[in-house]
Parts: sequence; structure tokens; C-alpha cells
Amino acid sequence: VFRYPRQVQFAETDLAGIVHFSNYFRYMEEAEHALWRATGCSIESAGSESGWPRVAAAFEYKRPLKFEDQFEVRVSIVSATSRTIKYGFTIVCGDVEIGSGAMTSVHAQKFPDGSLRAVPIPQGVVDRLRAAVSGT
Amino acid sequence: VFRYPRQVQFAETDLAGIVHFSNYFRYMEEAEHALWRATGCSIESAGSESGWPRVAAAFEYKRPLKFEDQFEVRVSIVSATSRTIKYGFTIVCGDVEIGSGAMTSVHAQKFPDGSLRAVPIPQGVVDRLRAAVSGT
Amino acid sequence: VFRYPRQVQFAETDLAGIVHFSNYFRYMEEAEHALWRATGCSIESAGSESGWPRVAAAFEYKRPLKFEDQFEVRVSIVSATSRTIKYGFTIVCGDVEIGSGAMTSVHAQKFPDGSLRAVPIPQGVVDRLRAAVSGT
Amino acid sequence: VFRYPRQVQFAETDLAGIVHFSNYFRYMEEAEHALWRATGCSIESAGSESGWPRVAAAFEYKRPLKFEDQFEVRVSIVSATSRTIKYGFTIVCGDVEIGSGAMTSVHAQKFPDGSLRAVPIPQGVVDRLRAAVSGT
Repeated sequence: VFRYPRQVQFAETDLAGIVHFSNYFRYMEEAEHALWRATGCSIESAGSESGWPRVAAAFEYKRPLKFEDQFEVRVSIVSATSRTIKYGFTIVCGDVEIGSGAMTSVHAQKFPDGSLRAVPIPQGVVDRLRAAVSGT
Repeated sequence: VFRYPRQVQFAETDLAGIVHFSNYFRYMEEAEHALWRATGCSIESAGSESGWPRVAAAFEYKRPLKFEDQFEVRVSIVSATSRTIKYGFTIVCGDVEIGSGAMTSVHAQKFPDGSLRAVPIPQGVVDRLRAAVSGT
Repeated sequence: VFRYPRQVQFAETDLAGIVHFSNYFRYMEEAEHALWRATGCSIESAGSESGWPRVAAAFEYKRPLKFEDQFEVRVSIVSATSRTIKYGFTIVCGDVEIGSGAMTSVHAQKFPDGSLRAVPIPQGVVDRLRAAVSGT
Repeated sequence: VFRYPRQVQFAETDLAGIVHFSNYFRYMEEAEHALWRATGCSIESAGSESGWPRVAAAFEYKRPLKFEDQFEVRVSIVSATSRTIKYGFTIVCGDVEIGSGAMTSVHAQKFPDGSLRAVPIPQGVVDRLRAAVSGT
């Protein structure tokens, strides 16, 4: 499991006094990108015409997070196909499980006609992500 | 189906040139709150100690939205229990389906000891939401 | 004065129960872009390599905005040079002045070497913005 | 000067490929709150009915920030009155100055009638902030 530590910022809370539910999707993405950096790559290769748009994203909420809470996003690789990666996430704050979720991304390329189409994931990428997840 | 019209704002896009995937959860919430207002209520009763934290939220992405796109969020009531409501959402832009999702909220009350616990949904609330969904 | 009507959304509030101060900058930008559309143009010409990065932005806060408040952003053109436009903004909610601010943008072009440099504003743009501000 | 290190996250960028200008206000706030924590306090005392709403906020932009840039927010105390504190900020990325800004906050209390009024800053607060700024 790859671990991404984070603290709740003021702007991430809402009038109910807890983190707005949409921000958990940003926390998951931050952890995903930190995992990529742990493999020595950036998910965004400068000048590249390919990217990783989302196919699906979901989160189940168990306990709220509050301002200045220190929490951890734990990332795993749930599955992968030739063109997609599905990540799993658990968010914990101390001993408390805050919730868990998943996101599936597709490797897509922008073609000269402006269209965005799924393309194969370069060899080795999924292996390196799996190694970074196991090694920590 | 209840319809909530919206236009993509600049700050909602990311460096890939499309709406950031986390913002679809804000679009769904905006549509949910507009549905509540259509019943003559606000989801947040001023001074009330009860609220509607999320239990689950999910979205599946089919096509991207871009800056200034005019789109529509269509809301339905998928199911309800004594304490929870599950909303369904489809986002369309012209004839194109952008994606669809769901959110489940629980009616919760803040008790004097600071704890937040599920409490029954006041009578009539779900009927009024269903009527607002059917009537439009 | 150009008027942009808006309602406060839940995700824009923070734990203090009011709109987070950073969101006023998004409200000003939304109003600026609505002003551009009122001239028949978009501030972002598709495929164009030019844009309008900010040089300066400021806001003074008088009264808070709360969830579901209906407010109005009033836009004026404070001044313009050959490469910059300074917009003025006042936000009001009913009879109450919420605050006022200003933003200066520069017309910039992305050059093949990746650099971003100020370039002259195309003729007529400032006149059309001024007309849209006066005509409403 | 108090230093707050930070990295640009994907969701903070916009379609121009750079950090959206409104996010600099969130960066300044994050640094302000980190400064408070460095004094051993939180800017939000749990259960307290007082807070620090903004009176004014401004930023001048010199160079853009991009995805994954590592930058630093440098905080200083510009001035203080019996009820307000004005913070100054400079954001740098390596040797490059990204921009600078300021924010003024007022110490306010929520009264039983719902009104929010300025109240004196508790003794020692400004001294502790000044010490944290000098000591680092």
C-alpha cells in the first residue's frame, strides 16, 4: 500500500463544519499523482498529447474529516487492462477509517482532429505502479 | 425528471482543457439543492442542527465537458429508506450524454455531545421531492 | 454597469458558515466572462494561442454571503492600456453591499518557444466591452 | 519570514495550463494557518464563537505556477491594530518570484443575536505570530 499524508485545509470545509464530500475525490487524485511520482514519473509528461481521463469515480463515507485533521490516503492497484487502471483508496485518520473509494482512468491520446481516444498503456507503467505500491 | 441547467465556468477546467472530474460531484449537489428549492424548502433549514451528510457518491464519465458548455443535470429519486435518500443523476450537453451518477445522503442530527447520528426523515419530505421530480 | 446574477452554492461555504473569501475571485471572473459573452465573443477563442492571465486581483469584504443568497456582480471597465484591461466589481445582495474589487488582465500569447508574452489587444475589443457595460 | 512549502496539485490548474489565479488566495491562507500552528495554536479554537473573517485580500501575479511545481509561501506580519492583522506574502518557486500579496483579517465574534462584530485580539497573539515569523 502506498501512503499519502495530508492535512485538512480551511477552504476544504463547508458550512456543516466538515470536509465537503467532493474534496475526497481531490484527495484521491493527489494520492494517485504522488504514487506516480514515487515511480520516478509524472502522470503528466510535459508536452505530451496523452492523458488519463476518468472513466469512473466513487467514494463511500463513514466518518467526517474536520479542519486541520491529519489523515492518510492509502492507494492500491485494484486491476488493470491494456488501456485502463483501477485504483483503490482508503482514507484513515489515526485509527479511524474515514471512508474508501475507487477511480478508473483510461490512457487517452488527443488526435490531430481534436478527438480523444483510448490508447494502450506504455509497457512497464503498471508494473512500476504495482512495485511502488508494494514497496512501501 | 427534474432539470437543472448550468454552464461550465473557467475555474472548473483543468490543464487537460476539460472540466475536472471532481466538479461533477458539485454539479450533482447543485442540482439536488435546486430540486429541494423546487419543493419550496431549503435543504438547510436556518439554525437547524440537522443536515444531510453523504453516505456514498459515484459518477461514470462518458464524454468531457469544456469551458462555456451549456449542460443539464437531470435528477431522479432512485430510492429512499426511513433515514436515507438515493438520488440519480444524468448529465447531458445537447444530445450528448456526458455521464451519470448517484449520491446517497443520510438525515443526521448533531447531538449536544457533539456526535452526529442518523435520524428519521420528516414525513412528507420524500413525497414532495418525488412530486417535484415528476412534475417537471 | 453589466449585471451578473448568481446564487451561493453549498460547496462555496466554509466552516464559518459563510462563503469562503477565495470564491469572490471566482464570482468576479464568472461575471467578467459573462460580460464577454454579452459582446458576442468568448474570452477563450477555441484553438487560440492567446489568453488573459491576471496581473492583479483584489477584493474588500464588507458583509458575508451565505448559502443560497441571491446576489449580483456588477462589472465596469476601470481602465485599459494597449495590452491590459482593468475591471471593477461590486457585489450586492438585495440592498446590501457585500464588497468590491478589481482585476487586471493582460492579453498574452504563447510563443513556439513556450514563453508567454504580452501582445496588443485586438482592435475593437475594449470598445465592445465598454458598450456592453453601458448598454445594460 | 515564515516559510510554507507546497506543491501544485492537478485540480488547481485551469485550461490555460497554469494555476488558476483564485488558488493563490488559498495558498496564502494555508500559509497563514501554518504560521498559527507554528505558534502552538490553531486559528480555529474548537467550539469558539470567534473567527477571523477577511477584510481585504490582494495578489499581484508575476510568473505562472504549473502542475507539480514546488513552491514556497513566505509570510510576514505587515501591521496590526487592536482588532485586525495584516499579513504579507511572497510566493517563490526556486529562484523565481511568482508574485506577492496581502490579506487583512479582523477578529470577530458571533453574538447571540446572530450578528458578527469586531472584538479585540487576545493579548499575546500578535507577539506570538511575530515571534514565529522572526524565528524561522
